[in-house]
Amino acid sequence: MPKQVELKNVKITGGYFHEKQKMNRQITIPATYRQFYNTGRIDAFKLKWRSEQPNQPHIFWDSDVAKWIEGAAYTLIHKRDVNLESLIDSIIEDLVSGQTSEGYFNSYYQTVELANRFTNRNNHELYCAGHLIEGAVAYKKATGKYAFLNAMCRYADYIYEVFTDPYRDKNYITPGHEEIELALVKLYHETKNKKYLDLSKFFIDKRGTIDGEKQTNDGWASSNYAQDHLPVVEQATAEGHAVRCLYMFSGAADIAREFNDEKLKKACETVFDNIINKRMYVTGGIGGNYSGEAFSYDYDLPNELAYTETCASIAMIFFCDRMYLLTGEKKYIDIIELQLYNAVLSGISLHGDRFFYCNPLEVHPERRDYFTKIRNSQFAPEYERPEYFGCSCCPPNVIRLISSLGQYMYHVDGDDQDDEEIDKIYVNLYNSSVFEYNGVKIIQETDYPRSGKINITVETQETEETDKKFELYLRIPNWNKNFKCGADRYDITNDRYIAVNPFESGCDQFSLEFEMPVVELYANPKVHYCAGRIAIKRGPIVYCAEGVDNGDYLKSVKISDNPEYKCEQSQIDDNNIIKITCDCEIITEKSDVLYSENIFKKEKKRLSLIPYASWANRGRNEMLVWFMK
Amino acid sequence: MPKQVELKNVKITGGYFHEKQKMNRQITIPATYRQFYNTGRIDAFKLKWRSEQPNQPHIFWDSDVAKWIEGAAYTLIHKRDVNLESLIDSIIEDLVSGQTSEGYFNSYYQTVELANRFTNRNNHELYCAGHLIEGAVAYKKATGKYAFLNAMCRYADYIYEVFTDPYRDKNYITPGHEEIELALVKLYHETKNKKYLDLSKFFIDKRGTIDGEKQTNDGWASSNYAQDHLPVVEQATAEGHAVRCLYMFSGAADIAREFNDEKLKKACETVFDNIINKRMYVTGGIGGNYSGEAFSYDYDLPNELAYTETCASIAMIFFCDRMYLLTGEKKYIDIIELQLYNAVLSGISLHGDRFFYCNPLEVHPERRDYFTKIRNSQFAPEYERPEYFGCSCCPPNVIRLISSLGQYMYHVDGDDQDDEEIDKIYVNLYNSSVFEYNGVKIIQETDYPRSGKINITVETQETEETDKKFELYLRIPNWNKNFKCGADRYDITNDRYIAVNPFESGCDQFSLEFEMPVVELYANPKVHYCAGRIAIKRGPIVYCAEGVDNGDYLKSVKISDNPEYKCEQSQIDDNNIIKITCDCEIITEKSDVLYSENIFKKEKKRLSLIPYASWANRGRNEMLVWFMK
Repeated sequence: MPKQVELKNVKITGGYFHEKQKMNRQITIPATYRQFYNTGRIDAFKLKWRSEQPNQPHIFWDSDVAKWIEGAAYTLIHKRDVNLESLIDSIIEDLVSGQTSEGYFNSYYQTVELANRFTNRNNHELYCAGHLIEGAVAYKKATGKYAFLNAMCRYADYIYEVFTDPYRDKNYITPGHEEIELALVKLYHETKNKKYLDLSKFFIDKRGTIDGEKQTNDGWASSNYAQDHLPVVEQATAEGHAVRCLYMFSGAADIAREFNDEKLKKACETVFDNIINKRMYVTGGIGGNYSGEAFSYDYDLPNELAYTETCASIAMIFFCDRMYLLTGEKKYIDIIELQLYNAVLSGISLHGDRFFYCNPLEVHPERRDYFTKIRNSQFAPEYERPEYFGCSCCPPNVIRLISSLGQYMYHVDGDDQDDEEIDKIYVNLYNSSVFEYNGVKIIQETDYPRSGKINITVETQETEETDKKFELYLRIPNWNKNFKCGADRYDITNDRYIAVNPFESGCDQFSLEFEMPVVELYANPKVHYCAGRIAIKRGPIVYCAEGVDNGDYLKSVKISDNPEYKCEQSQIDDNNIIKITCDCEIITEKSDVLYSENIFKKEKKRLSLIPYASWANRGRNEMLVWFMK
Repeated sequence: MPKQVELKNVKITGGYFHEKQKMNRQITIPATYRQFYNTGRIDAFKLKWRSEQPNQPHIFWDSDVAKWIEGAAYTLIHKRDVNLESLIDSIIEDLVSGQTSEGYFNSYYQTVELANRFTNRNNHELYCAGHLIEGAVAYKKATGKYAFLNAMCRYADYIYEVFTDPYRDKNYITPGHEEIELALVKLYHETKNKKYLDLSKFFIDKRGTIDGEKQTNDGWASSNYAQDHLPVVEQATAEGHAVRCLYMFSGAADIAREFNDEKLKKACETVFDNIINKRMYVTGGIGGNYSGEAFSYDYDLPNELAYTETCASIAMIFFCDRMYLLTGEKKYIDIIELQLYNAVLSGISLHGDRFFYCNPLEVHPERRDYFTKIRNSQFAPEYERPEYFGCSCCPPNVIRLISSLGQYMYHVDGDDQDDEEIDKIYVNLYNSSVFEYNGVKIIQETDYPRSGKINITVETQETEETDKKFELYLRIPNWNKNFKCGADRYDITNDRYIAVNPFESGCDQFSLEFEMPVVELYANPKVHYCAGRIAIKRGPIVYCAEGVDNGDYLKSVKISDNPEYKCEQSQIDDNNIIKITCDCEIITEKSDVLYSENIFKKEKKRLSLIPYASWANRGRNEMLVWFMK
């Protein structure tokens, strides 16, 4: 089975990911810190808030800061930054001094509801603990500093003690917002302390088996909301709050892998299939239901009222990553790619300091303005990314995903101990980068996904100790039908990888080119919102049209039978994009008649399309993904 | 200007209206009484409810019962019914004994919040008073009994005293839910006491001029919600709660007519234009916004989330009726016809005992089931009419409209005193009926709107006192392009009436036939919900398709280029309807693929369409009005 590589061994050297990581370092990380500082989230770690003061700590604040630390930490792996580290160290110092003698830390409970620890499972307590653990692991990896990690081990030890002891005083067993499950697996990997793995398994196993917990959620949502309707192994559909659901299944996939649990693996696979076959937008967006930030029922994928939270798509990447490690199946990487370039990166402005919580596929600004005015904005999505959310989970989630992109790009399969075995190196995402592993260097040079062309160089540093052989596996993306590979000899595996043995093929440098024609996608007729319409895609990128390029009435745009798609280089806000144009008919008649027996006049025009993730960077305007055909 | 006729002079003798009135008398009126009795609404008039007992009176209960009395009273005009009268008399006795010495009556305030009369304008107090007044006027007209009317005069006198005296103790001036304005005009017409007319004018004039009142609505809706944003004469768009808005403009149109107020008339005309040109569904439905049962902004007409309350369309009929009396313009009758046959009658089951509050144009039952399950049913409309609503305004509103249909059918214009002037008799709605006026009898025989053919007989009873001449004006409906009139001589007026002078034409019997081809309607592209789609209409009837006839995937139905529309007699629940069939393509492929580059397989089929108002009488199924073309 493929294994994760160390982030320090992947250096992103240029291209699309490099642009995003530069933005992340220079704009997003400092801007988010400022927002967190200004709202009191950073000082909350000092536990000095007292009743009646401004900036009362909120139940999820610790998680916001923890995710920011995690994201910032990944940037330190390749390049230490004294100033950034001292900001983080200062937060960690506060946390360590505030931690109780038992190891407990929560800036909300320790200042607002001291007596009520572990009494309300909906209050994100173990969720915050999980994110702090993830932050601690990342910071230790990046800097070698142990203070945060040790503090979190103490906390995890305490959680173990409280939750696995049936006689301890607590009001619930499993958390209302999952996250700690996957975090404990990370803590286990970093510390090798199996207790943390066991605790994760404990939470996964208990969920959905405790009658009392099912009822506690009834207040504002059904038990499905917190994935409590069934034991995890029995779940077959993605239910409830999308982020919670996918954090849980990420943890479940970890546990299935670590314990070789076939039943749990099967549940994870079934839920994955349910999502991608029945509950996922063409952009990858998931959890379309505004009511509860949740998965809806099969095929219910409204385009305008698409909740599709940025965090949900990030959580889907986490889940797919673990499913890939669990099964070695390429299809999970294909979904990571789809999520990343579309539903996730739509969550952040091209400049890097504004964020979407929701990522709809159809936007009418006048609707948002109206419903905002009458204070019922759940009926219409935003058309511009705000700088800040009160509930600020998405910005630091984007930060940590962007700064850890390297770990999704390469995987290896092999045994360091066994010299006879041939190592496998998987190139799963394409971007200019250098990957080093066991004395081998894989170098990619590419402008992917704007171009399908990738130059690959393989450098082997022969050491005296080993001349271990390896094979290179290059993912053929699920959207690709034709490619050219410049290697003298290669095979195509059943699972659609290009297998190159650099030693056999005798080449240390070759080109690879995935054809990226523009394609039209139809939705299953059960998705009635898309009836008679197509989405347009090139490579992994879903396209949309904006009013600023095409005028009003986007819903009336009809793509021509032979639309003559053309791709051209363009820019939005200094970001390079590939723009697509095509022939269409647009209604141009400005009529005052509401209903008419006569069809409204149309004109042939060129429609201008931009990558979905780059929408909403040019002011207030309409946006649409599904066009009449 | 045309005048209203007395309901007693119009006898509906057969056809569509007769079926509805029979159902109303035999099913709807008794069933609604039972519901009201079982829920405590009838006994509430005894004012015996005490704290902690079941069935606490609600702020709008008086209005429910009052509308039921009004509706029942209209049925008594042509046929007295001792049992029905004794039920009503008993309620009236309770009311009269419960009325305070000042004349005040409100079953909620007198039992629940005795001290708080006239303190909370949102509590429907004057709204209830208005409906009681309308009920009292109707009951006096029907039976000649004065008890109810006199009681309501005392109440109106008291309201006059309280509200026009600036020194009296009350917390508001104008009601939060309009209705009393139009009721007071009716009371004035019945009693000739001008004080009531002045009080109505007072409420209309004051609205939107009082700063304090604007703020009282801020709690859950903007001041637009209660039409408080501007003085009535300055309003140019239909805003806020649709029923309130149109009850108010009904009153305003009355006041404009009574006081010859050109500015107020202009405001009424402007708002009417705003509605029909920008804020009305093709079915006539209005107030599409779920958030506040309200008008949305121009062209915002979502088909699935169409609130389009039955009461709002009834209120639109009241408004149009008064606008016709104010202006004599036929266009108002055209809208009455559209509302009646579509958005209003959709509100009641064909059997007569189940009711829709909302009348959407697209329904997916699985969506309703899902959102009901997660307790957020505002995101999906009902697909079956319930027997009863907690908020039960619509059923008695349908009752009183159906039982008073006669008064919308005929109008007259002439002066009884002036023998020289030629009387004008307008036939505005077509249905088998006999209308008697000044010694003239107009007899219609027709199956309209199922057929466009009408036989008209004119009988003049020559009296010795007068042989006054008259002209007959037959409305040419706005949807009609061709008709055949069997009268030997007739003219077409500028306002699209067929003018027949029976004496000149020498005929006392002739036929009239309006061609009723099936037509396809396009919506203005600004209504993006209907982009690329058509609605199908025949005569005044809008059609829809249901899943029970056509299977699933209605949104994917594409009407063929030459659809060969065919009309045929059919029945639903023993009601005669004209069914339309046409050629279309329907996707029939049952695929598991969510998104595909290949178009899903279609088949040519005949689509079966039924009148919109008869949908949802055959169990749980999809429904759609707008089809791809």
